[in-house]
Parts: sequence; structure tokens; C-alpha cells
Amino acid sequence: MRQAGRSLPEYRAIREKHAFFDVANTPELCATVTLQPVERHDVDAAVMFADIMTPVLGMGVGVELVEGVGPVVAHPIRTRADVDRVRVPDPEEFAPVYEAIRLVRAALRADQAVVGFCGAPFTVASYLVEGRPSRELNETKRLMLAEPDTWAALLDKLAATFTGYVAAQVEAGADAIQLFDSWIGTVSAEQYERHVAPWSARVLGAAHAPTIHFGTGTPHLLEAMAAAGGDVIGLDARVPLDAGWSRVPDRAVQGNLDPAVLLCPWDVVRAGADAVLARAAGRPGHIFNLGHGVLPRTDPEIVTRLAAHVREAGA
Amino acid sequence: MRQAGRSLPEYRAIREKHAFFDVANTPELCATVTLQPVERHDVDAAVMFADIMTPVLGMGVGVELVEGVGPVVAHPIRTRADVDRVRVPDPEEFAPVYEAIRLVRAALRADQAVVGFCGAPFTVASYLVEGRPSRELNETKRLMLAEPDTWAALLDKLAATFTGYVAAQVEAGADAIQLFDSWIGTVSAEQYERHVAPWSARVLGAAHAPTIHFGTGTPHLLEAMAAAGGDVIGLDARVPLDAGWSRVPDRAVQGNLDPAVLLCPWDVVRAGADAVLARAAGRPGHIFNLGHGVLPRTDPEIVTRLAAHVREAGA
Repeated sequence: MRQAGRSLPEYRAIREKHAFFDVANTPELCATVTLQPVERHDVDAAVMFADIMTPVLGMGVGVELVEGVGPVVAHPIRTRADVDRVRVPDPEEFAPVYEAIRLVRAALRADQAVVGFCGAPFTVASYLVEGRPSRELNETKRLMLAEPDTWAALLDKLAATFTGYVAAQVEAGADAIQLFDSWIGTVSAEQYERHVAPWSARVLGAAHAPTIHFGTGTPHLLEAMAAAGGDVIGLDARVPLDAGWSRVPDRAVQGNLDPAVLLCPWDVVRAGADAVLARAAGRPGHIFNLGHGVLPRTDPEIVTRLAAHVREAGA
Repeated sequence: MRQAGRSLPEYRAIREKHAFFDVANTPELCATVTLQPVERHDVDAAVMFADIMTPVLGMGVGVELVEGVGPVVAHPIRTRADVDRVRVPDPEEFAPVYEAIRLVRAALRADQAVVGFCGAPFTVASYLVEGRPSRELNETKRLMLAEPDTWAALLDKLAATFTGYVAAQVEAGADAIQLFDSWIGTVSAEQYERHVAPWSARVLGAAHAPTIHFGTGTPHLLEAMAAAGGDVIGLDARVPLDAGWSRVPDRAVQGNLDPAVLLCPWDVVRAGADAVLARAAGRPGHIFNLGHGVLPRTDPEIVTRLAAHVREAGA
């Protein structure tokens, strides 16, 4: 469960003393916060603590993580000249990430997986173009549709950076790579195929490890996302798990309990989890997860109880 | 095209002198800004100038429209006691809205329609519960799932207010009512059927005029929305028009050019419009429109040209 750490007091205690990117770029701190939810909830995998913008810090773009807002880019990228100024860093510039992966891999049992984290070119580009989180991503779509060559040049640079980044994560010990295309749900399938898929495919193809292809708001994009790649397709809570799975039948799926359910009393959480498990019907290839990240104000006790409940149901 | 006014200098000139709700609640001003885009672009219908929160101002809830943010509620509604304090106003309290409709109806040609505006209970409730625009609506879903009775009580009051509001708009001369469930795309079909549909159906059923049922992010909800009601189903730009229409075959449809396309040069706009028209294939019952509102920074000349192009294509 991604972002499970941010609901934990032990995580908040570390963040009181260290800024987000200081934690992400200090291997011992990064490994510690990555392991916190695994230790507390006894889940099957650790999702590396990182931000979607981590590799962008090496691309010569000023990014600030504003509390309660998200990534803010002081000078949004909207022209060819802006794109031309973006640099493609050497993957070795992200050495602290790989070192953190080594530490996490060494700390886990053999039957627990380390999941490497990478933003998808579209979603990262949307932050760079909008300058701040946006619901509709209209500036992003404008650039994509009005200046497809500029858009392609930007995604070329992001994909070039991310291919090296994911390959190095696998080399350091990541057992799988999850590609986060969190805001892809705003585009049509036609826009996806032309302006998104080639670059997501490039990153997924460079992992040389099993890949999880994640998005939200994607009921109209499941087939297109699967065509771009991913051994596992993420399903968010908008689609019934079985209905979503039937549209990508040759893949594994991950999902798809609504994160808002975890804000509810236990009987609602249990009923929600049981409904997901019933739709999975024991079919091999289902990774139980939320449809999106754990919300900060989630009660950690509920998450622990949920993990135990799902483990029991699968036993 | 909803919100076509906000890209116009003549609208901005009025807004420099008058706050949003002053314009909405002064019949002459409201009629003037409603007619501005119709006069400039020569379109077939006027969408009444109003905010989704207009009727909420009579419900004893403090709402402020913050520029660049949206509706902000100082004391979000999250408990049964909060809901109990909400009052159901007499529809006559919104008399300025009906007077504006009379003025607009009198100013238009007989072949031009007046479209009344009403927020859907879910989307209005989401603003009241979240307190401000939110992408994921997690507090709204928490209330809906953890306290279904409190949620139902809130939607009862909203639906009671809106049924009188839409009926009075039709009595004043509105030729159709558009129900805006702008953020409904965040819920699953199962959540929709249980926690949304009954109240949307109540409002749509009270209009006694043709209704347009609008939402965004709804590729997984089209059948459920149609079951709740609406002579016309709004399609946003995520679904190809013909594919969306084939799922609600007994209804008319409205849509679905991506509003971001209107930020592009004319050849991109024309190609986008032609693609929508090709998918409609001249089938009766298609209302050409954008998938969502006109963006504020859209060039009004482009909108005029688009309206002329669509008119010509349909001639």
C-alpha cells in the first residue's frame, strides 16, 4: 500500500526533523521510513519511499514540495526553449536511491518484495507544465495537442531519465518497478495512444523486472495502458475488480479498495475488503491493494487489521 | 457551451464592478451576462449564469467564491448535527433567478433555448463536506460510506431545495434544465446507485421539462447516470462520442470536444470538432458541445469560429 507511511506517528517523528527530499536522499533515513509500514502492518512488499519528482531534481528544474499542495514548479515548462533547457542526468546522480534499495532489500525477508518507484512520463510532465497540481491538466493537454513536437521532446527527456533510473533500481535489488501515472485518467484513449503510450512503454521496457502499471480514473484506458506495458495493471476503485480484470485478462491486477473506506469503522472496512476479495475469487495474479495511496489521516490500527484480514482470507 | 462568458472582455468588465453572486442575484445583470456569449457566438441556447452553490446560499451555509479556488465553505458539513442545521428554503427565495430567466427568454429568438442551471445533490454535497474543491473527495466518500443515514439526510435537504428550484425555473421560462454533477466521476457505479442516483432522479423528475444530465470523468457511469434520468446525457472528452452514445442508445447526447482543444490554433480546433461531428455521423439527438466548460483563457474568436463551423457542418 503506497504512502502507508504518512499515516504513522513514527514517520511523522522523522519528518518533523527532516524535509521530504532530505529523507528521500539519505539512504538510511529513506530505508527506515520505507520499512516502517512493512514492520508495523506485516505486508508482503515495501514500496520505496520516493516522490514522483525525485529524478526531476536532477534535470535542472526547480521543484518544491509544498505541504498540503504538492509539487510546485517555479518556472513551468511550456515552450520549446523551456524543454531545451531540461537536462538528462546520469542515472548515477540518484545513487542514494539505489543505496536505500540495497538497505531495504537486506532488511527484508526473502519472501517480501521491494517495489521500486517511478513516475510515468505523462504525470511528471503534467506537473512540469502546470506548475502545480491541477484537476483538469488543461495546459498539459494544450501543449500535447498544439505543439506535439515540443511535447514529444519533453517526454523524450523524461523517458531517457526514467529508463536509466528504473534499470539502476532493479540492479540495486528492486524486485519490481511500479510506474505511477496517477493523473492519466484525464486523457482520452486516442490521446493516450498517440501522446503517452510510446514513452510509458519505453520506461516499462527498460526495467528488466516485473512491472506494475498504475493509474487512477482509468476506466476508459485499461486496454490502452496494458498495450503500453505492465505485468500487473493497477485498478482503482472506480471499476469492479472482476470487470476491470476481464478487460486485461492476460495480466495480473493490483487493487482496488477505495482508500476512503479506510476512514470508516472496521465493519465497513472489512465489508469493503471482502467485496474486493469476492470479485478476485481466488484467481491467481491478484495483488490486494487500495485503489490509490493511503490517506494521511487513516488510523494505522485499521491498516494493520486490514492486512491481517486479507492475509487470513488468502491463507 | 457552459461558462463561455468568462472568456469575454464584456463579462470581465461587469465582474470588475460586481461580485459573482451580485451578478447572479440581480436579474438585469444576470440576464446581460447570460446573453453575452449567445450574442457574440450566435449559438442555439443560453445557459443561465449561475453557480452550483446559488441555492445553497439560502440553506444557511456560509459559502464564499474564492477567485482561482472555487467555492469555500467556512464550516464544512460533516456530522449529523451539521446536517440538522441546514435549512430547506422556500423556492421563492430565489426569485431573482427566475426573473433573470424571464428576461433572457424574452430577449432570445423563439428557436433559441434557455437552459436552466442546477447543481446535482452529490456534487453540491461534496463542496459542503470537503469545504473546498478537492480532487478525490475522500471526506465526502467517508461520510457516504461510514454514515449513510447522515449522508441521506443531507441529500434529502439538497434534493428538496433543488426540486423546487428547477420547477420554478421551468415555470419562469427555462426550456430545459441541466443538472451538473461535475465531480461524480470519483465514485464507483455501485456507490452511485446506492448513494447518488435516488436524489439525482428526484431533481431530474421534478423539472417537468427536458433535462440534460451532465458529469465528467464518467466513462464507468454512463448507464447508471442514464438510469437515474436525463433526456440528454452529457459525454465528456474521455469517451469517443459514438462509443459513449452506444451505451445510452435511447437518449440524446451532448458533447464532447475537449475544452483544452480550444486553447490550440484553429486547425487543431477544426480537426477536433470534425472528429466529434464524424462520430455523431448526423444522427439526430446530438447537441454539439464541449466535454466541460469553456476555459477562462480561451480566445473568444476561436469560440465564434467554432460555432460557425459546427452550424455550417450541420446545415
